[in-house]
Order: sequence, then structure tokens, then C-alpha cells
Amino acid sequence: MSHGDIITAAVLVIGDEILSGRTHDRNIGAIAEHLTAIGIALREVRVVGDVRDDIVAAVNALRARYTYVFTTGGIGPTHDDITADSIGAAFGVAVDIDPRAVALMAPVYAARGIELTPARLRMARIPEGADLIANSLSAAPGFQIGNVFVMAGVPDIMKSMLSAATQRLRTGPKMNAVSIVVHRAEGDIADLFAAHQAVFPDVAMGSYPSFADGRYRTELVLRSVDAKRLEEARAGLARTLAERELN
Amino acid sequence: MSHGDIITAAVLVIGDEILSGRTHDRNIGAIAEHLTAIGIALREVRVVGDVRDDIVAAVNALRARYTYVFTTGGIGPTHDDITADSIGAAFGVAVDIDPRAVALMAPVYAARGIELTPARLRMARIPEGADLIANSLSAAPGFQIGNVFVMAGVPDIMKSMLSAATQRLRTGPKMNAVSIVVHRAEGDIADLFAAHQAVFPDVAMGSYPSFADGRYRTELVLRSVDAKRLEEARAGLARTLAERELN
Repeated sequence: MSHGDIITAAVLVIGDEILSGRTHDRNIGAIAEHLTAIGIALREVRVVGDVRDDIVAAVNALRARYTYVFTTGGIGPTHDDITADSIGAAFGVAVDIDPRAVALMAPVYAARGIELTPARLRMARIPEGADLIANSLSAAPGFQIGNVFVMAGVPDIMKSMLSAATQRLRTGPKMNAVSIVVHRAEGDIADLFAAHQAVFPDVAMGSYPSFADGRYRTELVLRSVDAKRLEEARAGLARTLAERELN
Repeated sequence: MSHGDIITAAVLVIGDEILSGRTHDRNIGAIAEHLTAIGIALREVRVVGDVRDDIVAAVNALRARYTYVFTTGGIGPTHDDITADSIGAAFGVAVDIDPRAVALMAPVYAARGIELTPARLRMARIPEGADLIANSLSAAPGFQIGNVFVMAGVPDIMKSMLSAATQRLRTGPKMNAVSIVVHRAEGDIADLFAAHQAVFPDVAMGSYPSFADGRYRTELVLRSVDAKRLEEARAGLARTLAERELN
């Protein structure tokens, strides 16, 4: 691939606990930051429950559309962990205990004095044709099948797996971002900002308002893969804000 | 509708800033908790960027499938706020400045000494046939069109709008949840837990592991709309854990 190709991704969060509000997701933000930093454009996120048909439909929709799909959740030892079987169904392949996964788990479990029960061996169930993703924290691996990376839902384990998976990923140009903060309401800078966007159609511009300590605050964020062009846009915006005494 | 009907919902988060990782979403968890508390089952969440075709496709997919859709983000005054126009496109209706929205905004802006510029009037652009959703914080309203509720992305404003929208929502039976915490690894209770799920197929059971201070912790969560049945399942599980000395 050429350096300039955009690599895209989707995240699929799997778990009833997110949809019920019992657990507040922390993986979406962590994966988004990581992908942006390495030059992969996250384009869509979905959250579905522990429902096989919903997982299959989402995985198949997303893997057809984006370069990569990253899933989190549902690969533990209990009966509500149905991600591996659902991914197998999505790809139309069998899922069974994988000797490579057992080989990763057995020595770690033995060293910790934990028995490799049938329930724990559920975590070694891997779809046919998948490659394993190492888990440096608790041994039971994630896996990659096609362009889909299947990771744990526990944030620290997810991060370990994402780190292990990263070396396999093609990456594109990195998106650079700069921001200018003005202590003005969005409405005060909207016209100027839209005019500036029109001059730099190749630089993505977004405005993010907040209100704290009785003061308006608006962060103007500019993003581009072209660092030189980005700096031109930033400098031009800063100059215009200063000229209108809006900085 | 009868009391027992399940009311379902989806959330659509709109915004480049979530996908880039710049902003970590706080609305999904807040909406999930609120819907669960009032008896609406959140079934799916999607996050898309500030891209009209992506917003239109997601809104149309979700509104056809669930009782309600709640969107957050993209209804401010700047050029990157394209949610109202995208929702209009999804419903095939015109979007224009709505006198009812102006009437809500004008007195509040006047009292605060803020001019109602053309940029700010962008926030009064509402799709034809929509009902407004009040915003008690900053006046510029959200709106409801069909079964879609369009809300701001700023968490406090979103909450104000969600609260205002709630009176219009049909609700179903409330999902009750109880949990039992054991200081065991998931693998130690997985077989017992699966057997218990088989005895109570009508009670949803999930297991959520964590590891802190050198100690395994697993939270077993049981959920049902039937409080009596839920208590039977909880008591039975507690008894079985005690019998096996796993409590």
C-alpha cells in the first residue's frame, strides 16, 4: 500500500452491562486515542448486548465496511461470554478449544496454582483459522480472524491485547491536531470559523463549547494529515481571532 | 399498550471528537442508566462522525428497529453542527428556522445580553413536523421527530433535554437487578453459575470480573422484570455458593 492510503476502523463493544448502564465503558475512548495516535481513522462504534444474532449482524456489517474491526467483551469463562462463538458464526467457521491457546494458558495457570477447569478452557475456544492475540496479564488470549480483532472487556486486559495486536496493523498517515481556546461563546466565533473552514476545506475543523466558572470556553480544533497545511490554518485562524479581538 | 410490552431504544452519538479520542463520551452511560431506571431497554448504541451520509444511514437503520432513538451532539451554532440537517434528510423533510425555537431563545439571550446572530439562529433550525425539547440551561432546544429525540452533546445540556423528553416516553416494565460479589476468579464459579442460569432461563445472568489489591473479585448480576422471580434466583444462587463454600 502507498503511504497515503487511509486505514479505517470500527469498534464493537459487546456486553449487556454497558447497555444497562451498570458499567460505564472505558474502552471506546482508549481505543480511539490509540488508533488516532498510530494513524488509523476510527469511523464508527457500535455497542450491542450479549445476543448472538446482534453480534453476528454487527460484525458482518462492520468488517465489510472498514479496514479493521476491534471488538471488546464477552470472551471470559462464564455462560454469558458468547463472543467467540458469535464471531465463528459470523465467519461461518467452527469454534473449538485451540491447543495454542491452552499452551499459553497452562503454564501461567500452573504457576498461579489455578486449575484449568472445563469452564476456564472455554477461554481457549477460538474460531478456526484465527491467530491468537497475547494477553500479558491473565494469559487467556484474544484472537484475530480476517480483519477482526477480538479482545477482552476488562480495560487493562484490553490494553494489553491492543498493544499486542498493533504490530500487525497497517497504518496510514497520522492525523495531526491543534487547538485554539477562546473564552467566548461558540456563537461569537461561528461565522469567522465557517469562513476559515471554507478557505481550508482540506483541514477538518470542529468547535467544542463548555461553560465553567461563569465563563464561556470554546475549543477550536483543527485536524489534518498535512502538518504544514495544518500550521498555516492554525496561524491564519489565530491571526483572524486577534484582528477581531476575539482571542 | 399493555403494561408488559418491552419498550426498546438505541442511542446515536454524533461527533468526530468522540471517534478521534479527543473527547471521552459521558452521555452513553448516563442515558443507559436513565432508560433502565424508567423501564426502557437500551438495545444498541452507535457512534458516527460529523458526516451527513453516516448520520442519515444510522438514524434510518435505528428508528426502523427500535421504539425510540436518542441522538447526542451536532446541534450547536458552528459549521460542523450538521445533525439537524442530517435528521431532516433522514426523514425527507425541510429544515428551517423555527419561530417556536426563536421564541424560546430570544428572551433568554436578551436577558443575558447575547445577540441573536445568524450563527446562533442556526440553533433554531428544526426539521418540519418536529416537536421541540426544552433546554433549561442554554435555551436552544432539541427536538423530537417521529420516534427520534435529538439532544445536545454537552452532558449537562443533554441531561436537561433527556429529562424534558422523558414525560413523552412510553415505558415498559422496569428491569430489576441484584448482584452477589464473590472474591473468586470467574473460572471458579462458571460451572455453578451456568447451571443456575439453566434453572432460571427467564432471569438474565452476567458475570463481571475484576482484580484489585491482589484479590480476584467477581460480581454476579441477575436481572429480571419479575421481582419475585429475581429474589428466588438470587436466594438460590447465594445458597449454592454457600454450600460449595464459594461465597
